[in-house]
Amino acid sequence: MLVSQLLNPTLREVPAEAEVISHQLMLRAGLIRKSASGFYTYLPLGLKVLKKIEAIVREEMDAKGGQEVLMPIMQPAELWKESGRWDVYGAELFRLKDRHNREFCLGPTHEEIITDLVRGEIRSYKQLPMLLYQIQNKYRDERRPRFGLMRGREFVMKDLYSFDRDEAGLHESYQKMYDAYCRIFSRCGLTFRPVEADAGAIGGTGGTHEFMVLADSGENAVVHCSGCDYAANMEKSECRPQVIDDSSPEGKSKLVSTPGVKTIENLSEFLAVPKSATIKSLLYQGDDKIFLVLIRGDRTLNEIKLNNTLGGFVSLQLASSELVLQTLGCEPGYVGPVGAPDGLLVVADQEVPLMKRAACGANKPDHHYVDVVPGKDIRIDKVLDLRMVEPGEACLKCGAPLKEARGIEVGQVFKLGTKYSKALGANFLDENGVEKSCVMGCYGVGVSRTIAAAIEQNHDDNGIIWPMPIAPYHCIIVPTSNKDSLVVETAEKLYQELKHLRVEVILDDRDERAGVKFKDADLVGYPIRVTLGSKTLANGQVELKERKSGETYLVRVEDLSQEVKTRIEKALQC
Amino acid sequence: MLVSQLLNPTLREVPAEAEVISHQLMLRAGLIRKSASGFYTYLPLGLKVLKKIEAIVREEMDAKGGQEVLMPIMQPAELWKESGRWDVYGAELFRLKDRHNREFCLGPTHEEIITDLVRGEIRSYKQLPMLLYQIQNKYRDERRPRFGLMRGREFVMKDLYSFDRDEAGLHESYQKMYDAYCRIFSRCGLTFRPVEADAGAIGGTGGTHEFMVLADSGENAVVHCSGCDYAANMEKSECRPQVIDDSSPEGKSKLVSTPGVKTIENLSEFLAVPKSATIKSLLYQGDDKIFLVLIRGDRTLNEIKLNNTLGGFVSLQLASSELVLQTLGCEPGYVGPVGAPDGLLVVADQEVPLMKRAACGANKPDHHYVDVVPGKDIRIDKVLDLRMVEPGEACLKCGAPLKEARGIEVGQVFKLGTKYSKALGANFLDENGVEKSCVMGCYGVGVSRTIAAAIEQNHDDNGIIWPMPIAPYHCIIVPTSNKDSLVVETAEKLYQELKHLRVEVILDDRDERAGVKFKDADLVGYPIRVTLGSKTLANGQVELKERKSGETYLVRVEDLSQEVKTRIEKALQC
Repeated sequence: MLVSQLLNPTLREVPAEAEVISHQLMLRAGLIRKSASGFYTYLPLGLKVLKKIEAIVREEMDAKGGQEVLMPIMQPAELWKESGRWDVYGAELFRLKDRHNREFCLGPTHEEIITDLVRGEIRSYKQLPMLLYQIQNKYRDERRPRFGLMRGREFVMKDLYSFDRDEAGLHESYQKMYDAYCRIFSRCGLTFRPVEADAGAIGGTGGTHEFMVLADSGENAVVHCSGCDYAANMEKSECRPQVIDDSSPEGKSKLVSTPGVKTIENLSEFLAVPKSATIKSLLYQGDDKIFLVLIRGDRTLNEIKLNNTLGGFVSLQLASSELVLQTLGCEPGYVGPVGAPDGLLVVADQEVPLMKRAACGANKPDHHYVDVVPGKDIRIDKVLDLRMVEPGEACLKCGAPLKEARGIEVGQVFKLGTKYSKALGANFLDENGVEKSCVMGCYGVGVSRTIAAAIEQNHDDNGIIWPMPIAPYHCIIVPTSNKDSLVVETAEKLYQELKHLRVEVILDDRDERAGVKFKDADLVGYPIRVTLGSKTLANGQVELKERKSGETYLVRVEDLSQEVKTRIEKALQC
Repeated sequence: MLVSQLLNPTLREVPAEAEVISHQLMLRAGLIRKSASGFYTYLPLGLKVLKKIEAIVREEMDAKGGQEVLMPIMQPAELWKESGRWDVYGAELFRLKDRHNREFCLGPTHEEIITDLVRGEIRSYKQLPMLLYQIQNKYRDERRPRFGLMRGREFVMKDLYSFDRDEAGLHESYQKMYDAYCRIFSRCGLTFRPVEADAGAIGGTGGTHEFMVLADSGENAVVHCSGCDYAANMEKSECRPQVIDDSSPEGKSKLVSTPGVKTIENLSEFLAVPKSATIKSLLYQGDDKIFLVLIRGDRTLNEIKLNNTLGGFVSLQLASSELVLQTLGCEPGYVGPVGAPDGLLVVADQEVPLMKRAACGANKPDHHYVDVVPGKDIRIDKVLDLRMVEPGEACLKCGAPLKEARGIEVGQVFKLGTKYSKALGANFLDENGVEKSCVMGCYGVGVSRTIAAAIEQNHDDNGIIWPMPIAPYHCIIVPTSNKDSLVVETAEKLYQELKHLRVEVILDDRDERAGVKFKDADLVGYPIRVTLGSKTLANGQVELKERKSGETYLVRVEDLSQEVKTRIEKALQC
């Protein structure tokens, strides 16, 4: 490919619309252009990267026995009504009507369509397991589409659905996909971690991992163990309760005056005790239920754990001031557990019962209790793991300290169970002729999102640093002069040589200054740059530069092509 | 691939929902399944064919300098309002709103999006020509979606858009695409014709060809010359006026009683004159204009020509009985041109003025005029080419007789001119610094439709007969026994050998009777079948069968793989 013949409009300025670095760089490097909020056109180089990731995904799905199909993007409402999702899926679902007023949606996912397909075709256990996948556009009407391909409204996903005879089969399919996903992101040249994740509202029989590309800018916090392979989304990570050493005898609770003290910070200062000696009391409303949540003052409540352990509310939030006043007779800053009304459910994080004495709110303005003994002075109805894990804590598996990292979710594997097969009647006859529901799993890779994640992880001030396997081209040749015929001719000769060696090479044949070419090459992020200057070439040499390390090497012209090929092959094998 | 591991549900019965043979066979051969009216899932073998056609299209586009991009399917209404199409595009456009109530449509075509993209990136004539294409889903809300992939509501197209500096550049781009399309359909192994076509309502600077896959079941009638390369859509084909030999002197028109005679057939019988001696008179309404159309009684009016030559009405139809009565004072069966009201435009096909005498309606029940002389007894305001060409007529180019054929439109190349670039302001500066509008062309291939067209052209009573280049697999191995270990082992050995030779081979390892396997192999339409039977194999031979010719050959086991490979390579080179 010649740069002069490529639609690759690079930009020097950072576009105002782009907040995150991957979005900025994709616009600046001429990989995408916006067509509407959340909708993008892939320009030639952007599409090349997309197709490289798609090809890797496809190979790994095929290797695990996945069969590729292609389902419609437009889906009839009838199927979504059968599964029960038409009414519960919120504003993120794009809905439309056809000319006959029949309702459709644009698929954010394809459980309904695939289950409808399979129920028509599967009869016997002999046909299972069946793994079907597609690579296709998905739609999600985000409230605030932004961050470019990181959170668009139209995006490319690979979604595979597994159909098994039983849980054991599902477990096997799940493991296959887990392994395939590890291979996919390794082959893309990305640093990633599979982390235990929250099954959330999708339901299913539990068991789900997210695949996180690690990057400081990642929107997800994850913890991983320094001693074993444990890693989890922070939202999901289980906690080991920590005991605070305190050998003094139990005290006797008493009410004290704490004028103006409304927060844990204030209380800790005012009483001159560590925050870990206080209890945070939070009144929550989950749908139409009200409950009091207790957690140590130095900890952060994990609302996702709270919601999951209490059974999954559609809406879960801190109670309003009015509700606090009505329930406990005070304003939110003074909420406490002592003398909680009989009917009010009191749930405590597992560290609370381990406290010997604690300070807490008194449901009375400007007063707190001190020397409260949980379990004695405070009624606790349920003890649960409700807090956010913290870096440095001991791993639950091996005891080594946990580390924190930021990640971008690019894949998820998920055990669905029989939710959809039961709703839609995707059944089979087992060995004994008994009708059973298929046990399903679903497995997604955000293909377009992976491009953005790769850039978040691999860039510097000058631009993108593509990992070799997903670079739009592996090598760019930059002649620094268009007048020196030796430079021009050698550039053309090396270009032909490399093409002949099947190297993905691009030649910057534009009539531009060398500086402009260098800037563009760095911005677009080709892994290898070959520079031809009049002086070095007079000595029979060209410069080879690695984008990642920034290192440069002088190479004899006659050795260049083989040297480039060898470096690429080495990088692709990693 | 092993048939036992493939989702390929074949059907013995013809599904009631399928009217056309390609739809029937795609369902029966397990290539597609319906998800909703006009929406289909491609099963693994169907998707394989789709991808093969896509790959051929992509190679030919790239070979002509096309750059692949990927545009959004969801398009903002604003752009369609800018081009003026939002209000005129009818019920076929799927429209929807997002959560913020902003309007979008699902792209039936991408002129707006690509022109919007290009106007942001093109500044100079040096950047032209630019050829951008994509392969993607398109949407059209057909009133009666049917015929499977032949007329779906969601379908795969390749659309390329060319941007040039002037008409000469457009002509060059157009010719490139014309050539590429010829290569595409040749490489797909299809018999096709590029035909001159009607530019219709899309407008543009004229010049358009349709690419027709020839098949008896085709919905388009085309004519092609037996002596030269002329071919045209019958709707478009120009006609040479034919003179009827008649040496008798002109008569004098007179009104005759013709009780009960309302049609040309009746009139011809009643008067005992050939239909070619009568004039058909038709009152038409085009938008708010009314006009009388005259054509020889033995000819068929071509409404498309009528509409184009009169300037392009949005709606063109025969006048209602009420309008006929109001305009001419009679009912439709008696309409005639003699004494047409002064204000009424009378247009005649070019053969009408060549008639020496004619019979025609008299605007009076049960009466006709005979011996009418056009031009003398009848006022003619405009003489136009208004009729449908007929097989056997002389070609306008070379005079050889024209032949008729039926075709399925699978591609169209189109000179758009500056319609969209002017509306959206896609301009560039020419060599003299003058701002000009890009001159555009658009070029579409119905990728999914080509699958259906290929089947309409290539099938027999037993199923599909794939042309080698687009067959899902080139060769199927059918062991006729699952008990004879020699048969089973040899089948496996040949399967491995062929895979090693990079032959696209599938092994029917199912525990089914040989008859079932043969029926499925024929139905799916693999070009080459290798059959292993106990008897022939005892002699060291297997049977090779060509799906297309039905011919069978006995081949020695050790020669089989090379023989298969040679046959495939030969077929792919054609």
